[in-house]
Amino acid sequence: MSARIRVAVLGATGAVGQRFVQRLHRHPWFEIAALTASDRSEGKPYAQAVSWVIEGEIPAEVASLTLVSTDPAAVQQVAPDVRIVFSALPNEIASEAEPAFARAGMTVFSNASYYRMAPDVPLVIPEVNPEHLRLLEYQRQARGWSGGIVCNTNCTVSGPAMVLRPLQDQFGVRRVFAFSMQAASGAGYPGVSSLDLIDNIIPFIKNEEEKLEAEARKLLGRFDGQRIAEAALDLSAHCNRVPVLDGHMVALSVETERPITPEDAARVLRDFRCSQVAELPTAPAQPIVVRDEPNRPQPRRDRMSGEGMSVVVGRVRPEPLFGEHGVKMMTLAHNTIRGAAGGSILNAELALKMGLVTDISFNLF
Amino acid sequence: MSARIRVAVLGATGAVGQRFVQRLHRHPWFEIAALTASDRSEGKPYAQAVSWVIEGEIPAEVASLTLVSTDPAAVQQVAPDVRIVFSALPNEIASEAEPAFARAGMTVFSNASYYRMAPDVPLVIPEVNPEHLRLLEYQRQARGWSGGIVCNTNCTVSGPAMVLRPLQDQFGVRRVFAFSMQAASGAGYPGVSSLDLIDNIIPFIKNEEEKLEAEARKLLGRFDGQRIAEAALDLSAHCNRVPVLDGHMVALSVETERPITPEDAARVLRDFRCSQVAELPTAPAQPIVVRDEPNRPQPRRDRMSGEGMSVVVGRVRPEPLFGEHGVKMMTLAHNTIRGAAGGSILNAELALKMGLVTDISFNLF
Amino acid sequence: MSARIRVAVLGATGAVGQRFVQRLHRHPWFEIAALTASDRSEGKPYAQAVSWVIEGEIPAEVASLTLVSTDPAAVQQVAPDVRIVFSALPNEIASEAEPAFARAGMTVFSNASYYRMAPDVPLVIPEVNPEHLRLLEYQRQARGWSGGIVCNTNCTVSGPAMVLRPLQDQFGVRRVFAFSMQAASGAGYPGVSSLDLIDNIIPFIKNEEEKLEAEARKLLGRFDGQRIAEAALDLSAHCNRVPVLDGHMVALSVETERPITPEDAARVLRDFRCSQVAELPTAPAQPIVVRDEPNRPQPRRDRMSGEGMSVVVGRVRPEPLFGEHGVKMMTLAHNTIRGAAGGSILNAELALKMGLVTDISFNLF
Amino acid sequence: MSARIRVAVLGATGAVGQRFVQRLHRHPWFEIAALTASDRSEGKPYAQAVSWVIEGEIPAEVASLTLVSTDPAAVQQVAPDVRIVFSALPNEIASEAEPAFARAGMTVFSNASYYRMAPDVPLVIPEVNPEHLRLLEYQRQARGWSGGIVCNTNCTVSGPAMVLRPLQDQFGVRRVFAFSMQAASGAGYPGVSSLDLIDNIIPFIKNEEEKLEAEARKLLGRFDGQRIAEAALDLSAHCNRVPVLDGHMVALSVETERPITPEDAARVLRDFRCSQVAELPTAPAQPIVVRDEPNRPQPRRDRMSGEGMSVVVGRVRPEPLFGEHGVKMMTLAHNTIRGAAGGSILNAELALKMGLVTDISFNLF
Repeated sequence: MSARIRVAVLGATGAVGQRFVQRLHRHPWFEIAALTASDRSEGKPYAQAVSWVIEGEIPAEVASLTLVSTDPAAVQQVAPDVRIVFSALPNEIASEAEPAFARAGMTVFSNASYYRMAPDVPLVIPEVNPEHLRLLEYQRQARGWSGGIVCNTNCTVSGPAMVLRPLQDQFGVRRVFAFSMQAASGAGYPGVSSLDLIDNIIPFIKNEEEKLEAEARKLLGRFDGQRIAEAALDLSAHCNRVPVLDGHMVALSVETERPITPEDAARVLRDFRCSQVAELPTAPAQPIVVRDEPNRPQPRRDRMSGEGMSVVVGRVRPEPLFGEHGVKMMTLAHNTIRGAAGGSILNAELALKMGLVTDISFNLF
Repeated sequence: MSARIRVAVLGATGAVGQRFVQRLHRHPWFEIAALTASDRSEGKPYAQAVSWVIEGEIPAEVASLTLVSTDPAAVQQVAPDVRIVFSALPNEIASEAEPAFARAGMTVFSNASYYRMAPDVPLVIPEVNPEHLRLLEYQRQARGWSGGIVCNTNCTVSGPAMVLRPLQDQFGVRRVFAFSMQAASGAGYPGVSSLDLIDNIIPFIKNEEEKLEAEARKLLGRFDGQRIAEAALDLSAHCNRVPVLDGHMVALSVETERPITPEDAARVLRDFRCSQVAELPTAPAQPIVVRDEPNRPQPRRDRMSGEGMSVVVGRVRPEPLFGEHGVKMMTLAHNTIRGAAGGSILNAELALKMGLVTDISFNLF
Repeated sequence: MSARIRVAVLGATGAVGQRFVQRLHRHPWFEIAALTASDRSEGKPYAQAVSWVIEGEIPAEVASLTLVSTDPAAVQQVAPDVRIVFSALPNEIASEAEPAFARAGMTVFSNASYYRMAPDVPLVIPEVNPEHLRLLEYQRQARGWSGGIVCNTNCTVSGPAMVLRPLQDQFGVRRVFAFSMQAASGAGYPGVSSLDLIDNIIPFIKNEEEKLEAEARKLLGRFDGQRIAEAALDLSAHCNRVPVLDGHMVALSVETERPITPEDAARVLRDFRCSQVAELPTAPAQPIVVRDEPNRPQPRRDRMSGEGMSVVVGRVRPEPLFGEHGVKMMTLAHNTIRGAAGGSILNAELALKMGLVTDISFNLF
Repeated sequence: MSARIRVAVLGATGAVGQRFVQRLHRHPWFEIAALTASDRSEGKPYAQAVSWVIEGEIPAEVASLTLVSTDPAAVQQVAPDVRIVFSALPNEIASEAEPAFARAGMTVFSNASYYRMAPDVPLVIPEVNPEHLRLLEYQRQARGWSGGIVCNTNCTVSGPAMVLRPLQDQFGVRRVFAFSMQAASGAGYPGVSSLDLIDNIIPFIKNEEEKLEAEARKLLGRFDGQRIAEAALDLSAHCNRVPVLDGHMVALSVETERPITPEDAARVLRDFRCSQVAELPTAPAQPIVVRDEPNRPQPRRDRMSGEGMSVVVGRVRPEPLFGEHGVKMMTLAHNTIRGAAGGSILNAELALKMGLVTDISFNLF
């Protein structure tokens, strides 16, 4: 493959949109061909319309791209060959826009939550449930779309789900108590007021606990070729917003079907690999990094592990309340990389490898 | 009673010592007669030796008090009538100094952790286990002391223990998952480096989880006149240090013996009173304040409830993993007031009322 | 005077409006009779419409007040006797609403900036330029109003202006370099995003430097009975937003007409009093508190000096670049108390004392 | 040159020592051959002795290096060929240790302040005063050393000095008012307590203003082959510690000899280059980056410009108090990179290029 695959980013001026732009820049397979924004910004160069809030600069080759409206025809006019679309749209726009793009033959890799729990939409973390991606085939048939919609997960569930996958496979997971300390960037920009987060914590994030509980069951569910049978896993969450910029910490107390020790758990987490994902360009060498120091992971010092794509685990220890059937630990995932833009891009890479993107079927490897 | 009772503060220059000074100032019953410090500061006026780190100013009548060494004879030399001593000593000094004061006839109300788990030392939160104070009588007899030692609890356990008391009484408490987000001031001054707490969280506090689990069992235990039978309660803790100045947040998932609903729990918490404590001068009107807003308690906005002595609870909701036998909630207690100096002062008020302070037996009410 | 004077607060749900409510509660002279808000909140009880962001609780007697629209007739309907109105309105609404209230016979003590530089509107800090209040008489005559408008200053200028008053009187002030570090609350709520203020500084606040420079000249100007002749003072400002909740710090390098030493300056600042203001109920005992410690003032530890109404000064030292004619120092003022609601309330107290509030002429003293 | 030059880091476990290790790792010219620490850590592997506080991991090839004592003989025993030594020692140790290494034939590139103002020690920022490095030759002769000492500057002066260099050359600089907002990392680790920096500012850093004023005069002074004639420049500083992790902001009001406009200033700053430095491996492509946005530079978003080696300038505007002879602006430099380890490494690169490192005289280019 000599040329890169041209893609579009929907809702490119928001915080997640910016992350998409940053991570697609210099991506070995992808190249940004179109950026969309709300009508207010349409027609402006990207650099002029965006209030760039993430570290580093706007990539030079994107800065002068003219924003088009979030409409399949508008994207096709400037980039008729686009088949992969990344969506950073807010839910209220995603609900109509994403199906429109799917109908127009594009496969939408979405960060919005609107379609995550739809029975025919795959909700995927590549290392956790790669086979769910094949639900796309059923979705296309059922909806009569030539494109499709693939969702990534809520930013908070990405760390726990990655950890629960190998634990479930090896020990069976029965119950999980999850307690989150979530970064400000999870609420977008401007998001949370500084008056709410200096010397303070907000012990509530709307709908977050419900999403975490529901998405974990779908992610760890079984795909029978047509639908996802949710996992029997019971998860209960306490979600909090804390004065941290990036990186969601989630403490877990896990009860397993079969006996488990902290040493077992650490080994299984460390050894966890997903062969289908290993060769993808933005997959981290180690999906789960287990640290032995007593006081890690820490959001600022560990969130960039694996360039923001590794989940970092520490303090793996016995869970006394579950006896021989329990462990507890701390997990960390970068919420705007692994838990948002980076997760969607990895989904697109996997879909390409599995031959699931309409009209693109060359040999990438 | 026309005159106030003269007291001493041991270790008066540290962060907790300062809180003692601040809260004893203008106390209706007590008056500071002596302050002790390490040898380095002995002989200096308090205002000169202290690096005052809490809000407001050093009370004028204390500023010029000359610091004496942490030694019963030194205290008795400047204030022979002192029978009540508040200890803000570090553990390594408390271990020898507190018994020395007890032997010399003074009752030490300590914030140190050294003697908390000693079988003959009462570990008391007045509203939770006032009757444990009577263990002092056994202690005096067993050790041959005319004074004694009374401990307050670890700052993190004070909120959960207050909440668990009425829940245990009404519903029986079987298991508790506790997740803390603890303020920087809990580590004293200078304590935690700013480089560890700006845009960061430390998911570990040495020995904290162990203390929380052990102290809860002792606090909620039964006193048979001679010893404390620990409660059967199983508690598992995850402790974290977060970028907040004051106020420890602890999320709880509680499993009860008998069925419970969030409405039941909220009512029982709201109605909780301890008659023996109600009339004490620094007891809050409402030991537990239950808030109905979805996003409270918050440390900065709620920590001063009841002048820092109330525990604030919010988000009382079902705990799905415990079915009809569970609730979850967020709790907040001011760690350097209710969880430290304020707690010890309330212990001393209660001991006075119960006639348990050697040589002081007038009628306060 | 047995009964308190009934007042209204315009724009009562915003951050400054909340401060007005908090400080008028238990005010010895004033009593809240009406609260206004935008149409969206009209008709709702205050407690339901407001997102209370400051410490403590909504005062109980205000919580159930029904919000009325920001319109003189609406206020007069619920409280026909109101003659004093405090305005926390945003500029775009203040521009029309404040004159409407003035026309209707009410004297508006405004925190908005819209009319601050109008030639016939007094811009007043009571201790700095109390005599400017008499411009109200000219304003009423010129505009044909029975009420009027009195402005407080920009929150950032309140500290420097207080300090420059006695320095100008004693030494003459020629030039001032001012560098501010301003708290998040200065931008209102939600105001500055947490993503802009965690581990960051914004070295720019729109129009702030211009306001600071212009208002200082008006505040320190001379009133000839009809107009304010601006002071010749040259001031240059660098304004920054920093991660602090409350309290604006402004470093000053001051060049004086006559020779000055740090000792002179400190003495003059410490001794500064304004006899007309001294007896007002919310005037601080000491308008300027000078601290000798090398590392004060600090926003968190000093902003509540004089219950938030004192300006705190420290590090008074030579300014080498101005030789014998210079000093430099750090100043601190609480931006939402002295620099906003508290300043306006003190203006109203002064106006009452000077007999400048229409229809209210009893003897307060 | 096929092999890299072997170097040592003195005081490698502290915060600046860690930065040296991080930046020397993968340096094209240098290779770490020895690390020293206090006696307490001697003999331990680096990874075990260090409490790594900066982002990322300890470089693998350094993690297992055994720490030796801070003594020339100890270093020569493990690495006899070392001629370049980077010092991150605290002053009280640097005062004796650095001359010992110089005597033993090693050239010390020091971050300590002890020798900065010594008349025969070059204090160098490569782009600002590269020719001062030749003072090494005089130093060696005067002290009889075969090695030598070269100092980098105080972290706060690095930004202003870089900016003042081209302004002085083009317009002559007469007076400068400097106002700093300095990051927590400038105080080392643990450094400033979190209780001093959450919701707070410390308006004082010991000796910092004096250093800033003195070092600026030496840096911009003229070298006559034997000594540095200090620049006539008058600089007055206000220094503050703010809740930011890395990146010192310094606002400047500059008075020039000849007329200046903001456009002139911005152009001159943008065009500033130092030919001797341009080809050095860690020299930034642009020593001074001038930004046009109204609200930049910001520490978190701009400190990594030029991989932490560029000084970022913004808000270049007229300084009204200096009329046609003044400009004001904001500057930012990364204090632990450009202002510490990175600055010393660039000094060493320059010294090599100028043939000033004893015993190393190959052709690097």
